[in-house]
Amino acid sequence: MRIETLCTGDELLTGVTVDTNSAYFAERVFAAGAMLDRNEVIGDRMDEIVEALRSLYSRADFAVVSGGLGPTSDDLTAEAAARAADVPLELHEPTLNRIRERFRSRNIEFTPNNERQARIPRGAEVVDNPWGTAPMFVVTSGRARVCFLPGVPREFHKLCDSEVMPRLRAALEKGGTPPRAVRTLKCFGIAESHIDHQVRDIPQRFPGVRVAFRTTLPENHLKLWAEAGTREAAEALLAQAETAARGLLGSRVFGADEDTFSAVVGGLLRKQGATVALAESCTGGLAAAILSETPGASDYLVGSLVTYTPAAKTKLAGIAPDLLGREGPVSETVTIELARAARGMGATLGLAVTGYAGPEAGTLPVGTVFVALDAADRGMNRRLQLPGDREQVRRLAAYAVLDQTRTYYRGAA
Amino acid sequence: MRIETLCTGDELLTGVTVDTNSAYFAERVFAAGAMLDRNEVIGDRMDEIVEALRSLYSRADFAVVSGGLGPTSDDLTAEAAARAADVPLELHEPTLNRIRERFRSRNIEFTPNNERQARIPRGAEVVDNPWGTAPMFVVTSGRARVCFLPGVPREFHKLCDSEVMPRLRAALEKGGTPPRAVRTLKCFGIAESHIDHQVRDIPQRFPGVRVAFRTTLPENHLKLWAEAGTREAAEALLAQAETAARGLLGSRVFGADEDTFSAVVGGLLRKQGATVALAESCTGGLAAAILSETPGASDYLVGSLVTYTPAAKTKLAGIAPDLLGREGPVSETVTIELARAARGMGATLGLAVTGYAGPEAGTLPVGTVFVALDAADRGMNRRLQLPGDREQVRRLAAYAVLDQTRTYYRGAA
Repeated sequence: MRIETLCTGDELLTGVTVDTNSAYFAERVFAAGAMLDRNEVIGDRMDEIVEALRSLYSRADFAVVSGGLGPTSDDLTAEAAARAADVPLELHEPTLNRIRERFRSRNIEFTPNNERQARIPRGAEVVDNPWGTAPMFVVTSGRARVCFLPGVPREFHKLCDSEVMPRLRAALEKGGTPPRAVRTLKCFGIAESHIDHQVRDIPQRFPGVRVAFRTTLPENHLKLWAEAGTREAAEALLAQAETAARGLLGSRVFGADEDTFSAVVGGLLRKQGATVALAESCTGGLAAAILSETPGASDYLVGSLVTYTPAAKTKLAGIAPDLLGREGPVSETVTIELARAARGMGATLGLAVTGYAGPEAGTLPVGTVFVALDAADRGMNRRLQLPGDREQVRRLAAYAVLDQTRTYYRGAA
Repeated sequence: MRIETLCTGDELLTGVTVDTNSAYFAERVFAAGAMLDRNEVIGDRMDEIVEALRSLYSRADFAVVSGGLGPTSDDLTAEAAARAADVPLELHEPTLNRIRERFRSRNIEFTPNNERQARIPRGAEVVDNPWGTAPMFVVTSGRARVCFLPGVPREFHKLCDSEVMPRLRAALEKGGTPPRAVRTLKCFGIAESHIDHQVRDIPQRFPGVRVAFRTTLPENHLKLWAEAGTREAAEALLAQAETAARGLLGSRVFGADEDTFSAVVGGLLRKQGATVALAESCTGGLAAAILSETPGASDYLVGSLVTYTPAAKTKLAGIAPDLLGREGPVSETVTIELARAARGMGATLGLAVTGYAGPEAGTLPVGTVFVALDAADRGMNRRLQLPGDREQVRRLAAYAVLDQTRTYYRGAA
């Protein structure tokens, strides 16, 4: 079965806006067991859209077209959809009434150009869009079923999930595409090439399972997908492969699918009834900022001493000037002292990070980072050599200092 | 002149990787006075690539193809380029020697599959790629000139700037495309719709000038472009329109083109010989993290007291518990006190921010944010009601607290 997308909009061809709708759909197509065959992006020109749609109608089995369904004169998609299928545009009364009602309930004046959005190619299936004005519609032409959606990402996403995917899954099942189950394992502290090496035998050990990799700095994600005769069999196969992959990757896996690093660390602290306070140097507040991305973080995050200069380390964290002078502000001893000072804010755990993020090196090379954890029962600390530019070193260092909580509680959980 | 791009790679059709190469090229095409007509993304299948290239050769005047030039068996683009042009692939000796030399100098074993990358369609122009192994090559077929580039973003960007754009600009000049000059004005503290309203007369006042808008949360960018008979005339016209736009938008414009907010605020502090210290609550360290993104920030950033809990506000910043109880941790008085405590770290300016980032409201609604600045000569403070979700409120609040330095030094600069 051939699946395609077509996105229209001049803004997508000037570099002003990046098309993300097609990637959103592509990911879901893939999870459903198939793969997108082509994505085209074209501008707001009638002849161009009609030509592209004629090719699409003749080439694809299933397609999604996004954009150009608005009320203004440069919204050409509905008319092009009709022309390419050699049918007229017709006013769809239920849609017109819905749009009028929508405007009335919001106290917005209904102007004549808004009627455009109720004009649909004859014979098309019309699908209500509760998230916006323009409806979705589905044109069947030859063997192709083509869904037309608004380009507004929020409306596109909602309609894609609730209306397009059920239609696509039904078509795939009819076409005999095997069910697929997908899981993303999110890792920190292991390079993509090492994940690859660790899990290289998984596809052989579990026939029907494939692997893919994706880097979202500083996280590396392993994607597993399993195909089998039934959805239940695919889920069972995936579960086996996931257990094997987790066994190989160990604690490098911090979560799966929708989990975020911030919420995973926060959830662990919450579960332990613990609080945390930080002292940050090279990360400049980034570690606390990441931990506080999760709502309710004030239950476990006390605060952070961002001591960006040596003087601030003395003033805020009480680090003796002679220690700073002797060991250097980026050093194991100073980092351990900073972690103690952080815990002194009244937290269960004190975390600290110092380092050289670059581009200029200090007394140690760029990428040298120290992290430390201080608790009532014990302390931990590590020296790291992190790769990449300033932004990358800072993000890696922020994750590394927070990740110490996972190390500390390992086994205790 | 018709300009297109074609990107190949299965990873672009599974949602794993988003195609950013075409947007990179599109932005430069647009700045050069033209516009991309179409972008196609297809997978690694020989028949699909050959078919897409045949259409491209017959339809486009100038095109860029990216991806599929690597050494492995799923890298099919060079062979497809030859098939679609009905010419054979030929071994290009200078390229083969360059690749062998590259491997030798890096102590990497040269395996037979690496020879693939030296096989080029007969008659194509070969362009050295100092940033990677696979060369760029240019196929001329019919009226079309098609540049083939590696898909690795870094190599694509370098070759795009140094090799593709000079060829495109020459073709555009020959085709009579009027020269264009482009400027991006970066704004904070004004909504896109308000920028639109402010500058609505610019295209009428300056014929040949157009405007576009782009939001990169929490910044809003105004793009101005001017077309005229010569490059010098376009630059002069752009300068006039820019002066007018800056007059209308005033201090909301913090920079242009490659300027970053972090570097603009940092540059201002450096120019004033000033230092800054922060006290942050709802932003959780994000304001200091943004300011320290710029290399050399330790020249002007002392640090930040991230006081995420009321107890931390007392412990770290000496805010009296009864004041916190009476006024609330998110309040004008507490924010002013926090700014004083921040300056007490030994900085020229103390900045503070408190607020409710959501999703749950406190004693005040979500989006309520207080910012304050404390200096030796005077203090400033503001209450803001910021829109959006938790992430958006936090980013807006972080910018707002830092932006006070621009307000403070306005006129003094």
